[in-house]
Amino acid sequence: MSDLDPNTVRELFAAVPLFAADGDAVRGEILEQSQIIEPDKNEILFIQGAQASSLYIVLSGWVKLFRETGDGKEAIAGLCTHGDLFGEAVLYNDAVYPFGAQAASEAIILRIPAEIIRTRVREDGEFSTRLMREVGQRLKALELHMEHLTVMTAPQRVGCFLLKLCRGKNRRNINILLPYDKSLIATYLGMELATFSRTLVQLRDIGVEVDGPQVVIEDAGKLQNYVCQSCSLDIVSCHTDYLKSE
Amino acid sequence: MSDLDPNTVRELFAAVPLFAADGDAVRGEILEQSQIIEPDKNEILFIQGAQASSLYIVLSGWVKLFRETGDGKEAIAGLCTHGDLFGEAVLYNDAVYPFGAQAASEAIILRIPAEIIRTRVREDGEFSTRLMREVGQRLKALELHMEHLTVMTAPQRVGCFLLKLCRGKNRRNINILLPYDKSLIATYLGMELATFSRTLVQLRDIGVEVDGPQVVIEDAGKLQNYVCQSCSLDIVSCHTDYLKSE
Repeated sequence: MSDLDPNTVRELFAAVPLFAADGDAVRGEILEQSQIIEPDKNEILFIQGAQASSLYIVLSGWVKLFRETGDGKEAIAGLCTHGDLFGEAVLYNDAVYPFGAQAASEAIILRIPAEIIRTRVREDGEFSTRLMREVGQRLKALELHMEHLTVMTAPQRVGCFLLKLCRGKNRRNINILLPYDKSLIATYLGMELATFSRTLVQLRDIGVEVDGPQVVIEDAGKLQNYVCQSCSLDIVSCHTDYLKSE
Repeated sequence: MSDLDPNTVRELFAAVPLFAADGDAVRGEILEQSQIIEPDKNEILFIQGAQASSLYIVLSGWVKLFRETGDGKEAIAGLCTHGDLFGEAVLYNDAVYPFGAQAASEAIILRIPAEIIRTRVREDGEFSTRLMREVGQRLKALELHMEHLTVMTAPQRVGCFLLKLCRGKNRRNINILLPYDKSLIATYLGMELATFSRTLVQLRDIGVEVDGPQVVIEDAGKLQNYVCQSCSLDIVSCHTDYLKSE
């Protein structure tokens, strides 16, 4: 099925925060007992309410965690990319996944059987602490996202989303590619697709040009001034701290 | 300072999910090494960004977890009541609290020093799993709240909030007391106070009467029909499952 290079997988796995402190030997063992899956874009990984049987680690690409309401609306519970985990319900016997998971782009995902994780948590306090930190990070990220949904304007939310994609780039004339569909970005940011499109036009005034999935940002510092005043995070705790270095 | 009955404290503590499986002896030791605080309404427990030094367990009353943005807006990260914990950042060395905590009513709170929790996580895999489950529950509750903020109408959100307060009551002619200020409820539900007040008037049509902090609900089942169709949770996983039994 796959012609994925095993070295690439090992390298991607070694960079996952939850397992970075493990030696190659420990990670090798986990890889042997786990499964690599490579879903196509839009492929469903599991549905909400399914018995939790694996912990998932995203090695590349994007995964959408979603929930469906009785009257057919969809809410986004999270968007995961390299290094993120989901399916932590697996830790509790007889738990079900509280959301469904669907690939938002092509992706490479490691699926670790429940028993491996449960045993490790029981036997390795240091690993437990790391896993708890990861779940704690998800919680913090979600709290921040909720803050943004309640206090930021639509253009600020879109600006924050774009700033996250600027990580590792120079401050000026940044070229980025939207990582998944605009309709998904809009839902995630709590707005209609039409609002999202209007918002992109509004952001032109501060040097953001969008052409299809292609985005050019003239000066990320300018965007940051516009966005970050309405956030509770200091710049160092945030993904935008790289912008200080210029 | 306090004339709190030690038996009351022990009983409240024994009913906290994280510690319910511990014996009286273990809980007694934790109580001895911890501090009971009894903040007045609106008293600040700690501010966002303070060094994390304790895990907090709410024994009674309500605590607001909040974040303040650079331009002075406030976002609610959570509202905790009996059995809830906060300050789990304490698990990670040198962590700071990602939000401030303030009593939203008079409250009784147990403050457990960091080292007790850290040692227990290292040495007791079963406790680790329980703690992770608690943090996981907070995450799930927050995901659900975010779903409601994005897909429910304002009257549905208020209705869901009221239904939670109906727990343990009979289905018809329910009398409840709003647990904290209306302005806090409004902020938590992602709306202005004026919207909240208008929404309460709208809910009259389905049998909800509000007089100050006093709420009378004619038929919780009717309210449930109005609210729960727009939620992704099945009724058993939700706080409203008691309504089935009638």
